Amino acid sequence: MARRLKLIVAYDGSQFEGWQSQAHRNTVQDCLERAFHKIGGERVRVHGAGRTDAGVHALGQCAHVDLAGNRLSADGWLKALNALLPPAVRVLRCSFVSESFHARLSAKGKVYRYRVWSAPVLPPLEYGRAWHVASPLNIATLQAGVQLFVGTHDFAAFAANRGQPDTNTRRTINSVRVQRREACLTIEFDGDGFLYRMVRLMVGALVHCALGRMSPDEIHKRLTSPQANGPRHVAPAEGLFLLRVRY
Amino acid sequence: MARRLKLIVAYDGSQFEGWQSQAHRNTVQDCLERAFHKIGGERVRVHGAGRTDAGVHALGQCAHVDLAGNRLSADGWLKALNALLPPAVRVLRCSFVSESFHARLSAKGKVYRYRVWSAPVLPPLEYGRAWHVASPLNIATLQAGVQLFVGTHDFAAFAANRGQPDTNTRRTINSVRVQRREACLTIEFDGDGFLYRMVRLMVGALVHCALGRMSPDEIHKRLTSPQANGPRHVAPAEGLFLLRVRY
Repeated sequence: MARRLKLIVAYDGSQFEGWQSQAHRNTVQDCLERAFHKIGGERVRVHGAGRTDAGVHALGQCAHVDLAGNRLSADGWLKALNALLPPAVRVLRCSFVSESFHARLSAKGKVYRYRVWSAPVLPPLEYGRAWHVASPLNIATLQAGVQLFVGTHDFAAFAANRGQPDTNTRRTINSVRVQRREACLTIEFDGDGFLYRMVRLMVGALVHCALGRMSPDEIHKRLTSPQANGPRHVAPAEGLFLLRVRY
Repeated sequence: MARRLKLIVAYDGSQFEGWQSQAHRNTVQDCLERAFHKIGGERVRVHGAGRTDAGVHALGQCAHVDLAGNRLSADGWLKALNALLPPAVRVLRCSFVSESFHARLSAKGKVYRYRVWSAPVLPPLEYGRAWHVASPLNIATLQAGVQLFVGTHDFAAFAANRGQPDTNTRRTINSVRVQRREACLTIEFDGDGFLYRMVRLMVGALVHCALGRMSPDEIHKRLTSPQANGPRHVAPAEGLFLLRVRY
C-alpha cells in the first residue's frame, strides 16, 4: 500500500532553474526525485503546491509524494533526504498524511514575500536575494498602491501568459503587509491563489508608482479594466520568496 | 601628487579565495586592483586593514590606495568601482584622506561577528554564512566561556601559525557580545587586534564547551599557560564576518 508523504521544502532559488522538472535542467523537483530514487529505489513524482521560476526562493514550499515502499519513518526520510540533497535545498519537515491531502489541490492559499533593496549600493550578501532599486522610493505612494490590490479582483492585467491563458483570472488577496527596515523593504502578499508571475507584476507596478513613473490610479484602472493594454513591469525573480502554503 | 583614497569594502567571502593577492587566484585584493587599473590606467596596490581567509565575509573591511592621477572625485571612484566590480564585492564608502592614514597601521581595533546556526537543519539561504551545529548547545556554558576571553591575555594558544609565529601574542579583547535569535547565535568580538585565526579558534573552543565536550576551565588554562599543548578546534571560515575596523 502506497503511503503519502508531505514535505515542507526550502530552497535557494539562485541555485536552480526553477521548481518544475525539465529534461537536462537542474530543477528543485528533479533534485528531490533523484534523492527519493537513490534512497528508496523508487521512481516517484514529487507534486509541489505550485511552480516557482528560476531564481525564486522558497522558505516553505509544500509537496507530496506517494511511496510504495514502507522502509523509513517520516523522520527517517527527512534525515536521508537532507543527507543526499545539496545544501541549496532542505526538507524542513516531513509527515505521512492521508490520501485526501494533495499539495496543490488542497492548498487554500499562499503567502509570498518580495524584498526590495532601496539604497545606492546593494550589499554583496543581498545579491540574488532582493531587487536592487538605487533611486529613492516614495513609500507613501507605494502604500497607497498596495491597498488597491486587497480584495477580490480580476488580475488578468497582472498575469503573464504561460502557454495557455488562465480561464479564470479572479483571485482574492487577503492582506498585503509592507515593512521597511533601513534599506530593506518587504512586501508580503497573502492570497487564496496567484496567477503566473502575479506577485512580480504587482511589485513591478508598485515600485514604478514609488519611483513616480506611474500613478496608483493606473493600478486601479488595470484591476477594473483587466483587458486594457498598457506597459507591464515585472519585478525580477530574485526578490521573490514563497513563504508558506496554507491548507 | 599622489592622493590617498580610503575605501570601506564589503564582500561575500564564498566567492573569493580570501583577501590577499595571490598569483592566478581570485582574491578580493586582486579584484579591486584590477578595477583600479581598468578605470584609471594605474597599477596600484590596495592596502587592506587585514587579511581575511577564503570563505570569510566582510561587511566593513577598510583599505587605502595611493592614486597618481587626479581624474575622479571620491564619489566618482565609488561609482566607477562598483560599476566594474562583480556583485560579490562592493565599495560602500570612499573618501580622500591624508597620507598619515594607513588602513593597517592606523587601525586601533576590529570588530568580528561569528554566526552559529544551532538547529537540526541549516536553511538553504544560510549555507556559507554560518557554522551549522546540529547538536544542542548549552548557552549558559558558552556565556561562561566567553567572559574568560575579555581583557588582556597571551592568546598564543588561540592563534594559528601563518609561516612565521607572531612574536607578540598579547592582545586585548574589549568586549564579547552573545545574542541568540531563534536558531541563530551570534558572537561579536571587539578587540584591539587579532592573531591569525584567533576568532575561529576562540569560537571553536566556545562551541566545544557548549556541546559539553570541553570545560570552560580549559579556556582559562590555555589563556594562562599559552604554550601548553592541547586539542584545538577551528570554527569554519564561513561563519566569520569582519564587521568594521576602528581608527
